[in-house]
Amino acid sequence: MAEHTSRIGFIGLGIMGAPMALNLIRAGYSLIVHNRTREKEAALVAEGAQAAASPRDVARQADVVITMLPDTPDVEAVYFGPEGIFQAVRAEHLLIDMSTVSPAIARRIHDQAVLAGAESLDAPVSGGDVGARAGTLSIMVGGSTAAYERAYPLFQAMGKNIVHLGDAGAGQVTKACNQIVVALTIEAVGEALVLAQKSGVDPHRVRQALLGGFAQSRVLEVHGQRALDHQYDPGFRVRLHRKDLAIALNAAQDLGVSTPVTALVHDMMNSLLANGLGDRDHSILIDELARRANTEIR
Amino acid sequence: MAEHTSRIGFIGLGIMGAPMALNLIRAGYSLIVHNRTREKEAALVAEGAQAAASPRDVARQADVVITMLPDTPDVEAVYFGPEGIFQAVRAEHLLIDMSTVSPAIARRIHDQAVLAGAESLDAPVSGGDVGARAGTLSIMVGGSTAAYERAYPLFQAMGKNIVHLGDAGAGQVTKACNQIVVALTIEAVGEALVLAQKSGVDPHRVRQALLGGFAQSRVLEVHGQRALDHQYDPGFRVRLHRKDLAIALNAAQDLGVSTPVTALVHDMMNSLLANGLGDRDHSILIDELARRANTEIR
Repeated sequence: MAEHTSRIGFIGLGIMGAPMALNLIRAGYSLIVHNRTREKEAALVAEGAQAAASPRDVARQADVVITMLPDTPDVEAVYFGPEGIFQAVRAEHLLIDMSTVSPAIARRIHDQAVLAGAESLDAPVSGGDVGARAGTLSIMVGGSTAAYERAYPLFQAMGKNIVHLGDAGAGQVTKACNQIVVALTIEAVGEALVLAQKSGVDPHRVRQALLGGFAQSRVLEVHGQRALDHQYDPGFRVRLHRKDLAIALNAAQDLGVSTPVTALVHDMMNSLLANGLGDRDHSILIDELARRANTEIR
Repeated sequence: MAEHTSRIGFIGLGIMGAPMALNLIRAGYSLIVHNRTREKEAALVAEGAQAAASPRDVARQADVVITMLPDTPDVEAVYFGPEGIFQAVRAEHLLIDMSTVSPAIARRIHDQAVLAGAESLDAPVSGGDVGARAGTLSIMVGGSTAAYERAYPLFQAMGKNIVHLGDAGAGQVTKACNQIVVALTIEAVGEALVLAQKSGVDPHRVRQALLGGFAQSRVLEVHGQRALDHQYDPGFRVRLHRKDLAIALNAAQDLGVSTPVTALVHDMMNSLLANGLGDRDHSILIDELARRANTEIR
């Protein structure tokens, strides 16, 4: 096991954060952890981490602070709140937000960090809890090259496909782009498979045939198979994907970008939530398209 | 070179049909060819094919008749017209329509063939003129297993990924599904890359990052690169893709399938045609999304 001198703070020990923190411990890092629901710290403490009472406490003790939080209000509270990271920020700090939030928030954290002489990175991930546990996350990074290089060994402990996209916010922009493409490709696969089903053509065979040509995608492969198997345990929840599309739509609105299909699929996800399906896998969009056509993929 | 006893008719020697017919000749088949613009027969005759004056003449002399035509009215004329194939149909005939038309027309040809004791297959392709020349087309086949097995060696001379999808019409249904997925994935990639561009994040890097995860697709790979290079020489023409989406939308309407995004992308292709871009590659949809956001992918 490697030894590292800098102390790493990790805030947010949910379904993603906990295994990411664990991978850092296993790579030889000393961790100071915090979670709003404090009981969740215990599992990491059992692995050698130290618990801290607040984000501010984490920042006091650590040189690098990583955050992995569910949504924008959580990130705002953890960074800017009265017990937040910025109450204890120092010039030595590297702040890495790996949550998925808007590029605007990433830039706000960055500006505030710079004011204190510190550094920050936005580094949202994809790959889900499976990737988090396996240490194979894709990590999309925005921020300075110096900060990126400083963080790189940490990213290596948590992910595999690590890409530096540009300045502050570029990681979140890329994540938003990723979520647009995934959502719209699920919709594409859904419209096609439902048409096949209702035409009396076996959607299993259609999926197989389409994988051999220009219609090929990871979504057709993975989510197409999920729809055929009616396997909608998450995976990636509709609720979270809807949140990510809302981030994309807000960014698009700020910039004057026409994203008609993102808006439409966001709206369909609203409908899934309204029908109590927010905690199912996002591929259930295909099932909803089948329902609208009064059929079932089988 | 193999020798084959049955004589193969081939009608429609355009950008796709001509190289497909040539591949059959090179595989050792005796061809009887016909094209509405008769001069196009000359190149195939120079390779050993025999010319025939009409589709009816082709059917008289051949046991298997393959058609590869641009659009529905052409297929209707060639099969059902006064000089059409059905004027000379015999029980020995296997009729193979490799054009992209509606499943309804494929079933109509099939029913008429069955009345004469003959067989038919719908066998639309994907892979474009490049695939046609290289003999690497994907071929999506609908019809009886017996007819499929009879045609299989011919398909092998023209394609690589050959799939039997089901009864008459199943090939066309699958092709429609393929065209839905490709069109909607281009839209997905477009909305994402334009958002990246307007956010000031390099779309080359975003494409590269997204290829490593669930957003991966052949379209992101190939058409994404085309958009970055502004390389809109076809490829596959907007005009033809719009036609294919119209087939899909008609089928969806007949069956009561909700395909909101297919309808929207079809509408965007209308707009491309109205602006004189019908003969550009379909990836120019990405360029149009950029234009709507008053930017340019670069």
